[in-house]
Amino acid sequence: MDLLSIKDPAFLKTLSNNELEKLSVDIREFLIEKLSVTGGHIGPNLGVVELTVALHKVFDSPKDKLIWDVGHQSYVHKILTGRACEFDTLRQYQGLCGFPKRNESEHDVWETGHSSTSLSAAMGMVVARDLKKTKEHILPIIGDGALTGGMALEALNHIGHEQKDMIIILNDNEMSIAPNVGALHNVLGRLRTAGKYHWVKDELEYLLKKVPAVGGKLAATAERLKDSLKYMLVSGIFFEELGFTYLGPVDGHNYDDLFENLQYAKKTKGPVLLHVITKKGKGYSPAETDTIGTWHGTGPYKIETGDFFKPSEVAPAWSKLVSETVRRLARTDERIVAITPAMPVGSKLEGFASEFPERMYDVGIAEQHATTMAAGLATQDMKPFLAIYSTFLQRAYDQVVHDVCRQNLNVFFGIDRAGLVGADGETHQGVFDIAFLRNLPNMVLMMPKDENEGQHMVNTAISYDDGPIAMRYPRGNGLGVAMDKELKIIPIGTWEVLKEGKDAVILTFGTTIEMALEAAEQLASKGLTIRVVNARFIKPLDEVMLAEIFEHNLPVLTIEEAVLQGGFGSAVIEYAHDHRYHHATVERMGIPDRFIEHGSVSKLLNEIELTTEHVCGRILSMLPAKKKKVLGS
Amino acid sequence: MDLLSIKDPAFLKTLSNNELEKLSVDIREFLIEKLSVTGGHIGPNLGVVELTVALHKVFDSPKDKLIWDVGHQSYVHKILTGRACEFDTLRQYQGLCGFPKRNESEHDVWETGHSSTSLSAAMGMVVARDLKKTKEHILPIIGDGALTGGMALEALNHIGHEQKDMIIILNDNEMSIAPNVGALHNVLGRLRTAGKYHWVKDELEYLLKKVPAVGGKLAATAERLKDSLKYMLVSGIFFEELGFTYLGPVDGHNYDDLFENLQYAKKTKGPVLLHVITKKGKGYSPAETDTIGTWHGTGPYKIETGDFFKPSEVAPAWSKLVSETVRRLARTDERIVAITPAMPVGSKLEGFASEFPERMYDVGIAEQHATTMAAGLATQDMKPFLAIYSTFLQRAYDQVVHDVCRQNLNVFFGIDRAGLVGADGETHQGVFDIAFLRNLPNMVLMMPKDENEGQHMVNTAISYDDGPIAMRYPRGNGLGVAMDKELKIIPIGTWEVLKEGKDAVILTFGTTIEMALEAAEQLASKGLTIRVVNARFIKPLDEVMLAEIFEHNLPVLTIEEAVLQGGFGSAVIEYAHDHRYHHATVERMGIPDRFIEHGSVSKLLNEIELTTEHVCGRILSMLPAKKKKVLGS
Repeated sequence: MDLLSIKDPAFLKTLSNNELEKLSVDIREFLIEKLSVTGGHIGPNLGVVELTVALHKVFDSPKDKLIWDVGHQSYVHKILTGRACEFDTLRQYQGLCGFPKRNESEHDVWETGHSSTSLSAAMGMVVARDLKKTKEHILPIIGDGALTGGMALEALNHIGHEQKDMIIILNDNEMSIAPNVGALHNVLGRLRTAGKYHWVKDELEYLLKKVPAVGGKLAATAERLKDSLKYMLVSGIFFEELGFTYLGPVDGHNYDDLFENLQYAKKTKGPVLLHVITKKGKGYSPAETDTIGTWHGTGPYKIETGDFFKPSEVAPAWSKLVSETVRRLARTDERIVAITPAMPVGSKLEGFASEFPERMYDVGIAEQHATTMAAGLATQDMKPFLAIYSTFLQRAYDQVVHDVCRQNLNVFFGIDRAGLVGADGETHQGVFDIAFLRNLPNMVLMMPKDENEGQHMVNTAISYDDGPIAMRYPRGNGLGVAMDKELKIIPIGTWEVLKEGKDAVILTFGTTIEMALEAAEQLASKGLTIRVVNARFIKPLDEVMLAEIFEHNLPVLTIEEAVLQGGFGSAVIEYAHDHRYHHATVERMGIPDRFIEHGSVSKLLNEIELTTEHVCGRILSMLPAKKKKVLGS
Repeated sequence: MDLLSIKDPAFLKTLSNNELEKLSVDIREFLIEKLSVTGGHIGPNLGVVELTVALHKVFDSPKDKLIWDVGHQSYVHKILTGRACEFDTLRQYQGLCGFPKRNESEHDVWETGHSSTSLSAAMGMVVARDLKKTKEHILPIIGDGALTGGMALEALNHIGHEQKDMIIILNDNEMSIAPNVGALHNVLGRLRTAGKYHWVKDELEYLLKKVPAVGGKLAATAERLKDSLKYMLVSGIFFEELGFTYLGPVDGHNYDDLFENLQYAKKTKGPVLLHVITKKGKGYSPAETDTIGTWHGTGPYKIETGDFFKPSEVAPAWSKLVSETVRRLARTDERIVAITPAMPVGSKLEGFASEFPERMYDVGIAEQHATTMAAGLATQDMKPFLAIYSTFLQRAYDQVVHDVCRQNLNVFFGIDRAGLVGADGETHQGVFDIAFLRNLPNMVLMMPKDENEGQHMVNTAISYDDGPIAMRYPRGNGLGVAMDKELKIIPIGTWEVLKEGKDAVILTFGTTIEMALEAAEQLASKGLTIRVVNARFIKPLDEVMLAEIFEHNLPVLTIEEAVLQGGFGSAVIEYAHDHRYHHATVERMGIPDRFIEHGSVSKLLNEIELTTEHVCGRILSMLPAKKKKVLGS
């Protein structure tokens, strides 16, 4: 059928199973084709085609509320709720968001991007429903990987306790982003194969019938045993123990099976956990046969072969540069242990893992545990390297404060995807880390100007033994600079003058250094010389250089690809005021006080006026009136 | 015996059970007497006397590592490791810390204060041990309440998966801080009463023997059934499912039982969960009969009666003022739902709970879930009030960023215990919240000057419907001011001039207003008039007033009982620079860049130079040279 003509999911109600099967084929073809151009989360969406169709057929969205955990598997839902025509703009500037978005559709009742939030959100909605005495169904759809996140487990505990009506769909695809980790995974594994235990139950019933009744006591025992065994052997003991009615496992690609169980769940009182087995990438063989998560989210690809259209990379990916430098150092430094919360591929730790399997821990989606486990290692004089995305470090904030910084432990945080991330959008922008880390005692925070300095910073972090140290690095690749053979140590709290100048100073670091240098270049044509400083330590600041700058009363512009409130620029003006340079002219450029949506980084930077042109304009406007006069500006 | 003579736990090795019983009596008497004077966590410590003695007898600390979760139950451990003589200074300035402290003793291997960190820390230590190929035992001791914290569940999942040697002591006292919440609690309840199921197992074995062997298949089934039943009926299925060897439940006040099980655990490979049942307050009847948590942590009390020596309270406790105002508003506003993560008593929500039981949710130690559940409620046009301590809000940072602020939902955060908290010390100081919340788009952050303004702010927060709003309030009681009958709404972002003046301006809020007014008073005697402003909105700032102040180029001093980096004072200087008041003299007073230990708030404020005298000195030093000359200073 013509997916572009779909306005809402009502049309599903009258379709036969045969028609639904055809619709599934159409949706898969549509996704495979569209995403081959735009890129996107192909694997997870191909896996939930039948599940999403079945949910929209059996339930009535938006009255009934579908809450997509993580949200990257909501493309089919977007198609069925009238957004197929927008897929050409998927994850692009001002285009269709890759996650649920409340201002896109009334069917998107909860926004996500980070994992494991759906159960708590659902609990809030369930409480609201029961207080308002309305009757809608609340259905969080959560993957087996997201279920290991601490907040999902907190919610399971509370939901089981409260016993309110809620239908949790466990979308078990045996692989979250990377192959799953954890004991809970094993429990799910046992449930998946529970089919083979049915015969045990049958035999037991036969056996129990054979036993002569020897009075009330034994009969009661036998009855209880039957209950226990049903409970134990058939399936779901883990969830039943927590107070859920467990249904499943259900074949997530079989409409009969899905309808039967969803209908049953609809009628069941109290919290239900419906265990649905799906296959990531279903229906597209390159994605279906993926075992390490390559097809979780991709760029454009060639449909026939599954080959990716990758821009030829002139420089190493930042994640790889960092992880490989850690690996290199691990060869001689036995203290090093690498930890990742479910991002071994994203953090490019495959090489480290294969060389040092016993010193590499993928702990699953469990940022809090990952951070405090690193702290535990550090108490034993080990040197943990925690590779974590900036946006996900937010999940471990108290662990950073209370466990790492407060005990002043030698944890090395590799803060990946710092700054704007582009297509993943506002849930994933790594722009708050400076503000939330800079206020913590003992923390050292730095960002390199290029991959050569990056490798020296990794070396610096590993050799630093006076407490926590964090290195931010952006999404994407380095600049392609020449790499020093020998690793150096960069003195903590020292900046570097990249270009001398006497009319103004730009203090910046990381990705925004390039625009600062370009601006200085452009201003040179106006006869201005601008000092550009690689302010590679965000904390501690280079107080020697700052004192010198303020003594000379040079106008200072700070630039950062991070939020302005409490950021690096604030640190500079704090320094000025604390040292009574009250006449210092310091201005700040960075990310304004609002969430930044998806789109290419360059478009986003333009939107928030963080470009070479804006830097030039700002510098010119900052110059003393006398100077401006001379320039005729 | 003379507890003061204990140097280390080695003496325990040779004591008989009888002698240990006598020691237990001595320890209890010591604790009851000492804490009657100093106050402290009496209930939890009386509950773990035998457990702590047994751990130190069976294991060899500090080689073997005891990791106390939360840490408030470490007093017996402190006595046995040579610190009895310091109990007169417990929780006092520069005295014995109420939590484990690494610089106090080599037996304190992990510092805590917040709950649920022990398992992750233990996992780090276990990995370090195995890499170093040493043989020590790692023993986290965690309460049943702390086990519901998300990070503990993340850790259980990972520990079960890795199968490394670790002995988790589950200290199950059926009550964490408040009575326990959650499905996991029910699981533990079933385990507690598992004793009565033993006979089921015995009968089953008898029954199975009666069944004639009908060939290999049934025999194999029977064997498997025996395994399953042992597994199921005897105990611990939940933990066994996660990959642990479950031992218990053990009577935590019976030395024979403890020794037998600890010895067994010591020899068991892989992760062990030893379930120990203890009674909070054991041996002191007022504490033993406590059902709501009053005896969890207390001030001084009269030993004979258990009556508390409370200073006569002239003003309502802040927690009570806030919760009772929310309760008052809830009578006419049906949208209001209160949520607390395990602090119904601390947050004084008992009244709300009894009047609106169906609108009050204690979700257990689960700050992340609490926050996102509030967000879920807000999506349904409800008005959730989340009562949460400043320090524990750190646990829900990503939920505040990603779920609440990003979706701009109407959640009212009651940030309790903001500022210095005193005796609980550095793990509990509520001093980071301004820095970590101020950088978040959509957040409104305020703090009242007294309880009358406090009740109006609660009303303001409840009526505000443009996104998240947070009100900070300190530990302790209000000032005893007269209370308006009618509740008002304070316009968002407006400050209040408390005292006019023309020589300088002090911008401050909440607890530090008093010292500002006193300083203004003292400076008046020198002929200076100081404007004192109640800067009750930390975000957004009162930009109208700021513009006026900077236009007049008055020297500005900001004062806050919070960290200086990225705090309120930084917001003021950011404003000055963003609006090009580059000549503004702004200085900041607040908490310096280090963790602040325990002690009375007044002593701590003195230590960090946040007193009336220091404010006077700072103002004088800020005045223009001309003015100083006139004053002769």
